[in-house]
Amino acid sequence: MMETTPQQKKILVVSAHPEPLSLNASLTAFAVEHLRAAGHEVRVSDLYAMKWKATVDADDFPDHAGDRRLQVMGASERATLAGRLSPDIAAEQEKVRWSDAVVLQFPLWWFSAPAILKGWIDRVFTSGFGYGPEVPPPYSEGALAGRRALVSVTAGSRASAFSDRGIHGRLEDVLHPLQHGLFWFTGMEPLEPFAVHGAHDLPEEGFAAAKQAYGRRLDGLFTDEPVPFRSLVGGDYDHDMRLLPGVEVPGAGGLDLHVRPRG
Amino acid sequence: MMETTPQQKKILVVSAHPEPLSLNASLTAFAVEHLRAAGHEVRVSDLYAMKWKATVDADDFPDHAGDRRLQVMGASERATLAGRLSPDIAAEQEKVRWSDAVVLQFPLWWFSAPAILKGWIDRVFTSGFGYGPEVPPPYSEGALAGRRALVSVTAGSRASAFSDRGIHGRLEDVLHPLQHGLFWFTGMEPLEPFAVHGAHDLPEEGFAAAKQAYGRRLDGLFTDEPVPFRSLVGGDYDHDMRLLPGVEVPGAGGLDLHVRPRG
Repeated sequence: MMETTPQQKKILVVSAHPEPLSLNASLTAFAVEHLRAAGHEVRVSDLYAMKWKATVDADDFPDHAGDRRLQVMGASERATLAGRLSPDIAAEQEKVRWSDAVVLQFPLWWFSAPAILKGWIDRVFTSGFGYGPEVPPPYSEGALAGRRALVSVTAGSRASAFSDRGIHGRLEDVLHPLQHGLFWFTGMEPLEPFAVHGAHDLPEEGFAAAKQAYGRRLDGLFTDEPVPFRSLVGGDYDHDMRLLPGVEVPGAGGLDLHVRPRG
Repeated sequence: MMETTPQQKKILVVSAHPEPLSLNASLTAFAVEHLRAAGHEVRVSDLYAMKWKATVDADDFPDHAGDRRLQVMGASERATLAGRLSPDIAAEQEKVRWSDAVVLQFPLWWFSAPAILKGWIDRVFTSGFGYGPEVPPPYSEGALAGRRALVSVTAGSRASAFSDRGIHGRLEDVLHPLQHGLFWFTGMEPLEPFAVHGAHDLPEEGFAAAKQAYGRRLDGLFTDEPVPFRSLVGGDYDHDMRLLPGVEVPGAGGLDLHVRPRG
């Protein structure tokens, strides 16, 4: 009996750590190898190795006249629609467009992405590319619909501190700006984040276990159920973008309002 | 009858926008003027004007041997304790230490701080300065206790989208990594964030109203009640940093677990 062959997919792995021997670099290398072994095509944006420019400024928009006031969204939208973004940005947009899934690998610094990765997001997801005119509306059928998204983080603290009642907050809530604000807003389907805890002094067997767990998550990249965020175009919200009365799961509040009950 | 004179305080305003004529730059200028007129001492870190380096790397730690593996937390902790951080970082730490309050002014890009400001946070709040050895424990009586903190953001979207049931999530939840993760973790007392919505096409009278509202918030910088986050050392959490059973406000979940009932 023949096994069904999973379809070959295209995956962009974006990695953000200054040290080539770091745990993050190892997890990136593992993911690339694991996904290629499964028959997928993989491209990597190793932001530190690329010396990625982190800050948005007028140089991003070559047509912007130096003596004019820079309105960032307007300038980036015009440059995007005219195909006149700085080449490093255009190259990353092409990778995202090419991909069926984006994986972000980073150490959780101050409960969010390192600046270099935030700068990849700030500069690449321009109006006209990730949202805005001439693309579908945000939150469900957005500009980048049809793509999966997975955050893979390392964190110094123990898992219990990010658990349901953990002092840092639940990891999915801490990562809300990425999960809901970036991925879901642009139409991508985010999976539950993957985390390696106790990353500062992970023993050898901890690393082996982490790779095993990560491998399973990578195997489910196109089959695991994404986080069931509510849909703007699907009729859960009013014209002021507020959740309609009574739609929520009884007792839910805060960020849980924006998640549908799970299967 | 003499009025009581409010005590003179020291305030650091950190501003993150590339355009000197932007709404953010105007709000920064307004805050500086308003606080000085009230008798306070004010210093400004205008990150774009300073050409602030956003990315953490080995250059931040002059004593780090180039051929050795860079463990970021360890290297930054050793450099901090030895007084051997790169001078730009040391200068910002001195400003934070000098201050009685820190105000962060920025445009909300992808539901968080622009990369250049994230890089200020990543690089300045090192182990040994903002947390870690030789300073008090995090979450309440931390390293930077005794300081107020205020986030002031501009956002393109309307206020309703960030309201209680708004699709983006409540602004305080979206800003959890800063409010709770940076400020409260390091012992600072965060106030409710201040926001100017509809920032892309704010009419003249909208700007006037925004300044008036911001002025009131700046007047309350040392007298408004901070967000009453729960305290790690105050006995709300167990040894695994999980909230003790039954401590929460009945019905509260998610990030609300970590806020005490308001007076």
